Amino acid sequence: MAELRQDVITGLWVVVATDRALRPVNFAAACVVPTPDDLEKCPFEPGHEVMTPLEVLAIRPNDSEPNASGWCVRVVPNKFPAFNMGNEEMDSDGLFPRRAADGSHEVIIHSPSHTESLGTMPVDEVELVLRVYRHRYRANAEDPHIRCVHIIVNKGREAGASLEHSHSQLFGMPLVPLLLQQELAGASWYQSRHEECVFCRLIADELAISRRIVAKNRSFVAIAPFASRLPYEVWILPREHQESFDMISETELEEFAEMLSSTLGKYNEKFGDPPYNSYIHSCPTDGAEYPYYHWHLEMVPKLTTIGGFELGTSMMINITTPEHAADFLTGRSDKGMGAA
Amino acid sequence: MAELRQDVITGLWVVVATDRALRPVNFAAACVVPTPDDLEKCPFEPGHEVMTPLEVLAIRPNDSEPNASGWCVRVVPNKFPAFNMGNEEMDSDGLFPRRAADGSHEVIIHSPSHTESLGTMPVDEVELVLRVYRHRYRANAEDPHIRCVHIIVNKGREAGASLEHSHSQLFGMPLVPLLLQQELAGASWYQSRHEECVFCRLIADELAISRRIVAKNRSFVAIAPFASRLPYEVWILPREHQESFDMISETELEEFAEMLSSTLGKYNEKFGDPPYNSYIHSCPTDGAEYPYYHWHLEMVPKLTTIGGFELGTSMMINITTPEHAADFLTGRSDKGMGAA
Repeated sequence: MAELRQDVITGLWVVVATDRALRPVNFAAACVVPTPDDLEKCPFEPGHEVMTPLEVLAIRPNDSEPNASGWCVRVVPNKFPAFNMGNEEMDSDGLFPRRAADGSHEVIIHSPSHTESLGTMPVDEVELVLRVYRHRYRANAEDPHIRCVHIIVNKGREAGASLEHSHSQLFGMPLVPLLLQQELAGASWYQSRHEECVFCRLIADELAISRRIVAKNRSFVAIAPFASRLPYEVWILPREHQESFDMISETELEEFAEMLSSTLGKYNEKFGDPPYNSYIHSCPTDGAEYPYYHWHLEMVPKLTTIGGFELGTSMMINITTPEHAADFLTGRSDKGMGAA
Repeated sequence: MAELRQDVITGLWVVVATDRALRPVNFAAACVVPTPDDLEKCPFEPGHEVMTPLEVLAIRPNDSEPNASGWCVRVVPNKFPAFNMGNEEMDSDGLFPRRAADGSHEVIIHSPSHTESLGTMPVDEVELVLRVYRHRYRANAEDPHIRCVHIIVNKGREAGASLEHSHSQLFGMPLVPLLLQQELAGASWYQSRHEECVFCRLIADELAISRRIVAKNRSFVAIAPFASRLPYEVWILPREHQESFDMISETELEEFAEMLSSTLGKYNEKFGDPPYNSYIHSCPTDGAEYPYYHWHLEMVPKLTTIGGFELGTSMMINITTPEHAADFLTGRSDKGMGAA
């Protein structure tokens, strides 16, 4: 069962997906190499393809059989989906609006290796994963039920992962979620007032100031954003204006892989392979035009805890300035969290 | 330093408070009785009053000296504040709006005991804490810089607490935070359309349906809300319409204490003294009228982790239905998280 419920007071939608409580958990004890038993239970190991639903895509360099070993990157439906098709119609009344959580929920397994991750894999393997992102993004975007495609990584148990084996998740959603709505509204307002994309303006200003730049290459820039919600938050933005992630070109895919790999490498170097979350913000896939939007990836290491202040206000308290975050990640400072 | 920064795209404000990174952490190892060393380092122990800033209020039944032992409940300014007075004016330009995080941040120490908490203390002691809440709420509400008073509990390290000794925090904020704005907008809209308070209507409907009621007494009702954002979320609402928490009467204080105590008792019974967050939503204290609003307390045990889906969408995936949460908390079901 997966359903969407709306809080009639705030208007906020929530996904109620009880199946997700049944997810198996598979992690080696902290700082310990996985045991043969860990590997045996991992549904993402080569040879364990029967433990997942049938694949929707796999990169198989030697043309091996579907749903067998021999793949480099493999995509399967999530066994415990937050969104799926075939939900029953739902009654909705008065103060209790609800609807079926129609959509899709896929898992993108990054590599046959149990221990490699996007921050440690060779850049060409990261590029392959991003190429698969683009393929699955496009396939899901074509589904008329799906209004928004959201691709995320939860790495590490503290960041919400249930399995250690490196993977991404793709959510095909039947609505445009609040945070993207807020970005769209702000970007649309800025465009109408200033006749330019607010993200393009931001990139130009940040490059000129240089203070919060974490890295850059020909096609991408990594910024510690001025109003970072969490310590060491980084956004990776394409320097050319593109509203949708799937507009990324072949050359840009390479450069995106390089930028993502090097930024994760900085996290690994500074925080010792930390748990982290990343997600791609891209314009809705509902057929409307969003020329004022500019896709990007946001990432944040999981170093702090959200408490009653943040839960009760939807406002974050960040104990690290983004200026310090940029200094620390680029090696200009060796002071830790909380340095000004 | 404490400052507010606004994301120019989403409009979201963030508090940047680097001092908070300096907070000492004091917790006994899990399930272990605090050692003499834990107690010696705890700034909230009686006799350790010198380890905190000077008290702003203390309940001293035997008229003991201020800032010495002999208190039942003690209120001090937070040593590592998210909001405070005396910040310098700040330059704000173009894409980088910011302002001083003027306001207050207080700690309400619930009891001299290191190990008691709101869920284990006698109800009359909980009532005393709530009476102190009301007093400090009123005192802060009178400050013309403060537009909103937000009182929270973070219990347990996993819920964001840095100290084990049971305490609440009061934030006096110079703005109305997003989630409260959303509630105000929804309540105002409902009132204008239906000529009644949406919370009053919700209480009546939930009592009639009965399915999501966790507890009730003469003055309060505890509900597992229809669109709960997190597993086992509970709201405690006054049955009489009141827009602001400080309108609570003497009798209602008693009944609120009883309801809070018994709901926390259910958490403790079902989840074995879990980490949890609670916060009071009350109308702004900016001098305007909010007759359509209805204050309440929201609470949630910390059982799950927020990941890249939630961070990137501002939408929650809840793996437990509120109907099951009510059944489980009231003993009608003994199934765990994820039961439908």
